[in-house]
Amino acid sequence: MKTVKAEIIAIGDELLYGQIVDTNSHWISQELDLIGVRVVRRTTVGDNRDDIIEAFSKAEQRADIVLITGGLGPTQDDLTKPLMAEYFNCPIVAFPEAVAAVTSFFQRRGREITPLNILQGHLPSCCTYVPNEVGTAPGMWFEENNTYWMSMPGVPHEMKKLMTDFVIPKLADLYELPVIVHQVIKTVGIGESWLADLIRDWENALPSHIKLAYLPSLGHVKLRLTGFGDDQVLLKNEIQHQIDLVYPQIKDYIYGYNDETLESAIGKLLKKSNKTLALAESCTGGYISHLVTSISGSSAYFQGALVPYHNQFKHEILGVSIATLEEFGAVSEETVIEMSKGIKKLFQSDFGLASSGIAGPDGGTEAKPVGTIWIACAGNGFVETKKLQLTQDRLLNIQLTAVAVLNLLRICFSKK
Amino acid sequence: MKTVKAEIIAIGDELLYGQIVDTNSHWISQELDLIGVRVVRRTTVGDNRDDIIEAFSKAEQRADIVLITGGLGPTQDDLTKPLMAEYFNCPIVAFPEAVAAVTSFFQRRGREITPLNILQGHLPSCCTYVPNEVGTAPGMWFEENNTYWMSMPGVPHEMKKLMTDFVIPKLADLYELPVIVHQVIKTVGIGESWLADLIRDWENALPSHIKLAYLPSLGHVKLRLTGFGDDQVLLKNEIQHQIDLVYPQIKDYIYGYNDETLESAIGKLLKKSNKTLALAESCTGGYISHLVTSISGSSAYFQGALVPYHNQFKHEILGVSIATLEEFGAVSEETVIEMSKGIKKLFQSDFGLASSGIAGPDGGTEAKPVGTIWIACAGNGFVETKKLQLTQDRLLNIQLTAVAVLNLLRICFSKK
Repeated sequence: MKTVKAEIIAIGDELLYGQIVDTNSHWISQELDLIGVRVVRRTTVGDNRDDIIEAFSKAEQRADIVLITGGLGPTQDDLTKPLMAEYFNCPIVAFPEAVAAVTSFFQRRGREITPLNILQGHLPSCCTYVPNEVGTAPGMWFEENNTYWMSMPGVPHEMKKLMTDFVIPKLADLYELPVIVHQVIKTVGIGESWLADLIRDWENALPSHIKLAYLPSLGHVKLRLTGFGDDQVLLKNEIQHQIDLVYPQIKDYIYGYNDETLESAIGKLLKKSNKTLALAESCTGGYISHLVTSISGSSAYFQGALVPYHNQFKHEILGVSIATLEEFGAVSEETVIEMSKGIKKLFQSDFGLASSGIAGPDGGTEAKPVGTIWIACAGNGFVETKKLQLTQDRLLNIQLTAVAVLNLLRICFSKK
Repeated sequence: MKTVKAEIIAIGDELLYGQIVDTNSHWISQELDLIGVRVVRRTTVGDNRDDIIEAFSKAEQRADIVLITGGLGPTQDDLTKPLMAEYFNCPIVAFPEAVAAVTSFFQRRGREITPLNILQGHLPSCCTYVPNEVGTAPGMWFEENNTYWMSMPGVPHEMKKLMTDFVIPKLADLYELPVIVHQVIKTVGIGESWLADLIRDWENALPSHIKLAYLPSLGHVKLRLTGFGDDQVLLKNEIQHQIDLVYPQIKDYIYGYNDETLESAIGKLLKKSNKTLALAESCTGGYISHLVTSISGSSAYFQGALVPYHNQFKHEILGVSIATLEEFGAVSEETVIEMSKGIKKLFQSDFGLASSGIAGPDGGTEAKPVGTIWIACAGNGFVETKKLQLTQDRLLNIQLTAVAVLNLLRICFSKK
């Protein structure tokens, strides 16, 4: 079986000058890796004719498929389309279907279309038009010079949709790709090195065609198992067997597998048991509510949230007693207990979660430095609390607290 | 004055396979941009001899300085050092100072040194040894083939220290660098092509040493003006003059400059006028509250937020009338007006903002398809509303609505 080689070209001065982070190339690398296509090079070039043409020509020599992002806007500094037309020596012409799509895109939004926008439906005559349902710059597929080419907008969600809906299925059609099976075990509440210690014997006994990677991120550690072989079913079974072997050692930390997120796992738990949730967020400022409601269908179990950013509202709306606030302060176990009970009552939910802390960078004291955060989970007849001592970074503290709060709910579920 | 051109080469299979995000290339781009060195290309290659040698050879043709990250670990798959020795045709020899540094690095940590680690002090004889104070792989500086070369470890904090302590001062010594001034105008509420139409005459009249770039992102468009010259003060004044010229045509859309975000701009407006804000978020689910509270010091003007995810709570906590909810539905102008007034009252704030809509992907009807969203801003004695018709994508709808809501507050400010 031939290795399919891909090359990624990102176009834009704003990338080279460091004004925009190129998250696209990394994402494409990951997606291609998952289907067994090998990325042999990634190149970033500026909005410059000679550099772009040279990048095309070099990529063509090395790769079977060239994926290009960026340089597709309606303005003069966007060069990808004219240069692809030049490189393949075919004129730019109106694609009626593409013009109709861009026109309807504007109509649906009730906005007037400009001549510049209409030109976005004009493409090199030798390309296959690939509709972009979430933006105005179409995708373009070429089969030229013994190479496949795909040009996509640089806007990440537009590129991702074109990759997922068109490029990945197309590559699976075109090539007999090797069988690679990935399974990811998602854990929370344990650090990478502790996890590694727990599963060392299992890891050392893994067969050579199954690789393990530790992928830590914000309060989570993902364990990715990758198997290489030629029989999909066999390989899947083998990996499942390995997961079954390691499960008993780390089951308390596992919240899901593969695409599961902590918030979607929590959602499933709530839905399955027909329970509801409400949030009282002080230091997390609405971020946990955002995570919970980012899940489609969350209205089935999510009642609502309150962000009471001052003690007055913790008292008036949530019913936290003035005595508690005065004696222990807003950042205290006593306060988060009353907040969690208060929000449960206000929204008539089965669970009430609460956070209160000093997110920073200001507001710390000697007794309660920046990063001191109390969280609570109130259920029917019990309250669980936890104190966190986090970092100096405001956003990081908010994100880590959100993970800890959702994990506290998960733990409450397993206990009650 | 000659433009100094730089090229960045990142080495490592783990980058191409998407296992590690290459944050280094972006960071180096930013640092070089600040001192007026122009990055002409960024390349990522795998741990493969031919690819690396070819990247060296191409970079040498294009750039004055080549910055290389990665491939410097002690194991066999790290190829940068032997390949640089091969490419410049000079043997790898012990650098006593480098061997001493790596030995002392291990001693300080109380760890035993292995023969592999000692070899990290062996370098190509033609390089200048650059001490790495925070890691074991030394930096290497070369002046070969009319090009400057710097090889650095891929570990971000090690690379950053070598760049800051050695490379940046070295480049400032070697070259008389041009003066580059960037100013970014931040706009919201207008698409890229409309903006381009509005300012076309101004854009066409820009002097050739001032470049304009359109940088669109989620409901915003940034206009970046970059000036090239040799007098910093003069250039700054020239760019400011251009901003003053274009300002009258787009002033309604400008919310700030450079690092300003919409939420920080809103914060300044509120703080300056001593006004406070509260949020009633239905379809945005707490995301606007998260944006507002991500700003340090937001407690000075932010009272709090409510996410009433069901009609019952819109009525019970916010006081939206049952008649309104029944007659017009939760997604209606009438409901968001009552929500905005209700939240203003609940939190005793000067402004109350509200959102209610169908974020999707489910819940759409023919009359109110997915992406239909109503927003409102209630002030003292007035309410402004707006209907949005957005996308099929839940997260995107949440993000775009957040931008529209904050922008509605900005517009209310300018009107009242």
